[in-house]
Parts: sequence; structure tokens; C-alpha cells
Amino acid sequence: MIRLSTTDASFAQDFAALVDARRESDADVTRDVSTILRSVREEGDAALKAFTLRLDGHDLDESGWQVPLADCAAAFDALDPDLREALELAASRIRAYHEKQRPADTAFTDDAGVRLGARWRAVDAAGVYVPGGRAAYPSTLLMNAIPAKVAGVERLVVVTPTPKGTINPLVLAAAHLAGADEVWRVGGAQAVAALAWGTDRIARVDVVTGPGNAWVAEAKRQVYGVVGIDMVAGPSEIVVVADGQNDPDWIAADLLSQAEHDVTTQSILFTDSPEFADAVVDAVERQLIDLPTGETARIAWEKSGAIVLVRDLAEAMPLVDRLAPEHVEIAVDDPQPLFDLLRHAGSAFLGRHTPEAIGDYVAGPNHVLPTGRRARFASGLGVTDFMKRTSFLQLDAESLAKLGPATVALAEAEGLPAHAQSVALRLR
Amino acid sequence: MIRLSTTDASFAQDFAALVDARRESDADVTRDVSTILRSVREEGDAALKAFTLRLDGHDLDESGWQVPLADCAAAFDALDPDLREALELAASRIRAYHEKQRPADTAFTDDAGVRLGARWRAVDAAGVYVPGGRAAYPSTLLMNAIPAKVAGVERLVVVTPTPKGTINPLVLAAAHLAGADEVWRVGGAQAVAALAWGTDRIARVDVVTGPGNAWVAEAKRQVYGVVGIDMVAGPSEIVVVADGQNDPDWIAADLLSQAEHDVTTQSILFTDSPEFADAVVDAVERQLIDLPTGETARIAWEKSGAIVLVRDLAEAMPLVDRLAPEHVEIAVDDPQPLFDLLRHAGSAFLGRHTPEAIGDYVAGPNHVLPTGRRARFASGLGVTDFMKRTSFLQLDAESLAKLGPATVALAEAEGLPAHAQSVALRLR
Repeated sequence: MIRLSTTDASFAQDFAALVDARRESDADVTRDVSTILRSVREEGDAALKAFTLRLDGHDLDESGWQVPLADCAAAFDALDPDLREALELAASRIRAYHEKQRPADTAFTDDAGVRLGARWRAVDAAGVYVPGGRAAYPSTLLMNAIPAKVAGVERLVVVTPTPKGTINPLVLAAAHLAGADEVWRVGGAQAVAALAWGTDRIARVDVVTGPGNAWVAEAKRQVYGVVGIDMVAGPSEIVVVADGQNDPDWIAADLLSQAEHDVTTQSILFTDSPEFADAVVDAVERQLIDLPTGETARIAWEKSGAIVLVRDLAEAMPLVDRLAPEHVEIAVDDPQPLFDLLRHAGSAFLGRHTPEAIGDYVAGPNHVLPTGRRARFASGLGVTDFMKRTSFLQLDAESLAKLGPATVALAEAEGLPAHAQSVALRLR
Repeated sequence: MIRLSTTDASFAQDFAALVDARRESDADVTRDVSTILRSVREEGDAALKAFTLRLDGHDLDESGWQVPLADCAAAFDALDPDLREALELAASRIRAYHEKQRPADTAFTDDAGVRLGARWRAVDAAGVYVPGGRAAYPSTLLMNAIPAKVAGVERLVVVTPTPKGTINPLVLAAAHLAGADEVWRVGGAQAVAALAWGTDRIARVDVVTGPGNAWVAEAKRQVYGVVGIDMVAGPSEIVVVADGQNDPDWIAADLLSQAEHDVTTQSILFTDSPEFADAVVDAVERQLIDLPTGETARIAWEKSGAIVLVRDLAEAMPLVDRLAPEHVEIAVDDPQPLFDLLRHAGSAFLGRHTPEAIGDYVAGPNHVLPTGRRARFASGLGVTDFMKRTSFLQLDAESLAKLGPATVALAEAEGLPAHAQSVALRLR
């Protein structure tokens, strides 16, 4: 963990180093992934079976390629009632939030008499990757699948590795709740390849979303263009902007909620109170002792954590913009003026009673968010990631007479005579 | 050119072959591009200078790295008045269409007392690639730059190669009209690298858009994630759905307007009239004789052109969906019922007086559209490609009391105790 202050002589340089710190894996998985993709593309199910046997340790012909939808329903019914209700609350709130994202079609006739507009349609099929093992989060399945269903996707395919054949019942329950149409027991780059190109068993989809390890992320990057993907995801981060009036334990827990995900995550506190900064550092240390995920969280905090002292909180906001973080908490009584100063962040959590974790589960906005400074240009997952827009135009003889001559002039200037001709013939 | 009929015994197979035909370059440029990217990332301007000398044949230190904005203004002023007016008409209509795409922010308080919503902001800087040589189209500069400016991008950077030092005055004029803030005389994968990572001279941008050759396309694919990009673009295509009541010459010109772009483009006619199909084939042959771009158009038409006879035009629409083409013309008196059947297309041109070329220049909708069946999942370039969304949440003690327990239950079920703790502490 490093401590900076905007009054340090070396601040500009130190902060630039923090912004540019690479936390992404340097492992060169590009070649491995492209070999796997090629195998699945060429050999289909045989390659899927072989990779699953080798990497996940089970034989798909014996364990079953698919989880029957009835098993998903049964897993849902078997949930502890509190947990089932929590998942249902999450699903209904996520659905309600995303329904407001559905884009409206447009159509109008302008003063040249041209009818024009745009029409949105869902993709036919979407694939959601759900990691196995440690990061098998039912909440992530909901966050990926519900926007697809709200978009109107008719075929929603879940792929998830089941290492040594073990299935996570929470994931199945979430698949049931989200309305998955197929659940396949495959994972890794090989599952992404199957979704992108299809195999005899698994029909190809149009969009692939969902988190995964470095192999999955690289596979998505390599199939981008064959299908749509959500985003190249990297390690998570949280920035907390807090005044001295917060409970240090609350803020420490928020910083650790990010740090516990993975040793590469980053938690940064901006505050105008040196005393509060000290109190948070102490609280982090205290909480780390009993935290079951403390080993991971400590490494992340010590390696990438930071505290930045600012003269006042407004000074923090352009610095936060440079980090363009996945999550920003603004823990003050009146957060709106500071939020108004912010340009680049995946999601913002405003006020003292909005811990980031509330957004991970039940609040409604998506928790699939741009990481690694990509909030400069990217948005969280949403309904339009599962839709596309068709623009349209309709002219008649009269409106073509108005726009035609300019088109002919431009087409000729660009050296495209057939373009010019297709208009000129209709002007005669 | 092939002719198919839905009544052929082999139609299903033949049409599948048409859908799956690969028209994209097989040249393996991946390695070359990654070498160029690495050079520019590591050596910056020195690498840019060296690649430009080698590939474009001029020394940037002598020819100048940038085109002064005053030169762009002068190029605009020097345009033939008709052409200048045509460009102005195009720019104003493109601007008007894209202004309607600007997304609205949302904010609401739900019945749990949670305030939530989403806010859109422009990216800080965007780079537009404009090809040199043959495909140096001022219209494409407008189509890329104007949506960025409508989005609110403050720094709009144009890069364009100037082979042997030659600058295309039309491109400069369009850069002036579109409000470009910088125009750099670099191109190829090296220009994309400079935009993505920045050099001493060229500050990095957040989004890179614009067409280019296979190297440029591959470079964009490789920097995707470092910056946002518009789309991996491939060869263009047009599908024309036409009844027998059209003038065969009009439809032939439309097919050739696509074919003249490049030998890899594809033009496909669906019609329910065999006589009309014959007449179009004859008209294409006649027009090819005098067409200045006929050599290219003939190769494209002979290699990838197709005519598909259908029993009735409604039968064509699901077939068009399988092609998910960049452009679809529906040349009938009442196009709306057929358009209602269509799901996958980049842009639609409705009625007999809407040649695709009108959309390339002055109509208003963007002409940067998904190619190679990507309209299954991708949209044309638009204002939101230069913007991103920040979701936000604000709870108070009361609303947190409502959503908190479910969050704690889910976080514990997912094995994320610090997540649970960050909420539980605030519930006490």
C-alpha cells in the first residue's frame, strides 16, 4: 500500500506511476488460446471432449454434455429459502433496471421529405460464460443473462466448466431463474470457440459475454468480430472518495470488499483528512485478521492499495478521472456536486450508505463493468450489448431530386461513378 | 456470378455455401502488425518516422508531421462551389441525424427508496483513420468525425497517410468541415499504435475509428481494449430485394455501386421475376462496358455476385437475415411489410427511389456499417461509440435496510465475506 499526498513534491510523478501500473497478467496465453480455438473450430465436439478431459478432468460422454433444465429448476427449488428470496429480489431488480435501457426505435420525416430512422432488434442467440471453481458467482450469471433476456434474445446459452464433474448448484439455480435455454458443461477457451463457431452439438451464438480467467479473456478477444463480446476484462478496482466524517470501519470494509476478489485487484482511498486515513489503515489491519479471505485481500492491499491525501475532495475528482475506475464510492453527506465533477467511471456509489457490494447483487445496475481504465471509453454491460440497430431511409422521386445532385457530385469527386450513376439514372 | 432458385433441389446447400463464403483476406498480417505495434509502443516517434519513410515514402521531418489546420481551411475554401455545397449539405444532414442518437441520462427513485440511474459522457479524445490513396473518401471522414463531435468529443484527431507526400485536398476540406483538431500525416498500423498508446508528439486517444486496409483492421483488432474501436470491418456487400416492376438499369447500377468498391465486395439480387433477373444481368453487362471502375466491378460481380429467385419476396427476407448484410434495398412500391420481416441488416433502403448511394453521402444515417454478416450482432457507427455510460446508485439507511440482508446472504453464499461485512456493518 502506498500513501501519496497532492502536496508532495513528487506527487505528479508518483500518481502517474499509480495510473500506469500494470496489474494485468503478463502470461503470454495468446498462442495457447489460438491453438485451442483452431482445434475446436476444425474438430468441433471431439476437441471439446478432449480439452474438457484434459483440463477439467471429466469425460463429457460420461458426465453428460448438458445440464438438463430440469436439474436447474430442481437446484433452484432446493435452495435455502432466504437465499432463494435473495436471488429472486436480485433478479427482479436487475430486470427492472435493465428494462429502462431498452432503446426506442426512431422514425421521422424531415423537411426534405426523407423518411429515416433506426430500428433495434435483439441478436438471435447469446452465450454467457460462467467460470467454475472459486469465481462461480450466481450473481454474475444473473447480471449477464437478464439483460440478454430483457433485450429479447430467444436462445440464451450458458457454458460453465464443471471441474472433475462437480456442478455448482447455485449457478444452476441462477440459470433457472434467469431463463437459460441451454447449459453446457464446457469451459475455458474451448467453450468460447464452440460458442463462436458452433459444433455439431452446440449451435453458434451471436454474442459471448461473461467473465473468465486469462485464457477465457484472450479467447473472447480473439473471436471478437466473429461474434460480439462484452469487453476485455481485467482485474477489478475500487476508488473511495471519503471525508473524515465516515466510520473508518465502513470504508475499510469497502476497500477490502474489492481486495478479497483477487490478488490483482486495487483499492484506493482519496480523503482530505490525514487522521481519517490513519484510522482506515488501522481498521483494514484489524479486519484483515479475521477475514476468511484475508490472505488474498492482504496481498492485493499491500501490492496495489493506495491512499491519496487531497487538499479538498474536489481536487480528487480529476485524479479519479485519470484512473477511470470500475467503481467509485463518494462517501459524503451531499455527493452530487462531487459526482458532477466526475467524467470517467464504470459505476458510482453515492453517499455513506451505498457500499459498492450493494451494487454487486441486488441494486439493479449491472456489475459487469469496464476495468483497467477502460471506463474512459467503455460502459458496463447492458441491454444494447445484446441488440443491434438497423438504420433506414426512404426517399421518393421528389426528395431524391433534392438530395440527388449533391450525391452525384460527391460520388464523382470520390471516383465512384457507379454510385453516381445509381442516383443519376433515377433523376432523369 | 451465380444464380440460385429456392425451388432448386440443391438450394439449401447452395445458399449455405453463399452465406459461408469467405471473402476476407487470408493474408496473415497478424505477426507483421504486432511487430509494428510493439515498435511504435516502445520507440514512439522514431518508429513512426521510420515506418512512414519505408511504407509511405516521405520523411515526416521534412514533409511535416501535421497538416496545419489553416491548410485544411484553405482546402475547403478552394473547393469547387458545387462540391463545397454538397459537402456542407452532407455534413449538416449527418449532424442532424446523429443528434437524435444522443442518449438521455436517466435518474429515478424506486419504491425501495433507492435513487439510481445512468449518466452518459463523451470520451476525451477520438482518433479517426482516413485511408490514403484510392479509398481516401471525404465522406468517410465526415461519417466518423461528425458523430464524435456530436457526442461532445473535445479532441478529434485525424490520421491519414500521405503516400510520397501527396495530400488529398478533399480529405483536408472534410477535416476542416468536421471540426478536426489535429491532422497527422501518418497511416497504417503504425498510426493506429500511435493513437492507442501515444507518442511524444501524438497524445493518445480513447477511441479509434475509421476504415483501412487489412493492416489497419488488424491493428485496430489488436489495440481493442487499450482503446475502444468501431468494428472489425471486412469487404462490403449489398442485397437488393426487388420485384419485376423496377427499371433493370436502376437495379443494375445499385449492384455495381457496391461492386466498384473493391474486388472482394458482394452484390446479391433477390427477385421473384425470372424475366427481371435476366434483364438486370443484361443491364449489368451493358453498364460494365462504359463504367470507369468496370474492371474492379466486373471481378467482384463475377466472383461474388449472385441472383436468387424466390417464389415471392416474403420468402427472401429470412434468407437475407442469414446473410445479415451491410446494406439492403427493398425496391417495391410498399416496402414496409417486407422491412418488418427483416431482423439483421446494417442499413435498409426502402422503395424504388432510395439507391444505397444516397446513404453513402447526404441522407444522414452513418455509412460505417457492419460487414461480413456482423449485422447479426453489430450496429453502424453512432454517437454512443464515442460515449460511455456511468451507472449510479444512492441508498440511505432506510433503503439499505431493505436491500442489505439479501446482499449479505448472497455475498456469503458466494464466499465473499468482506462484501457481506461492508453491508452488515452499516445495518447495525
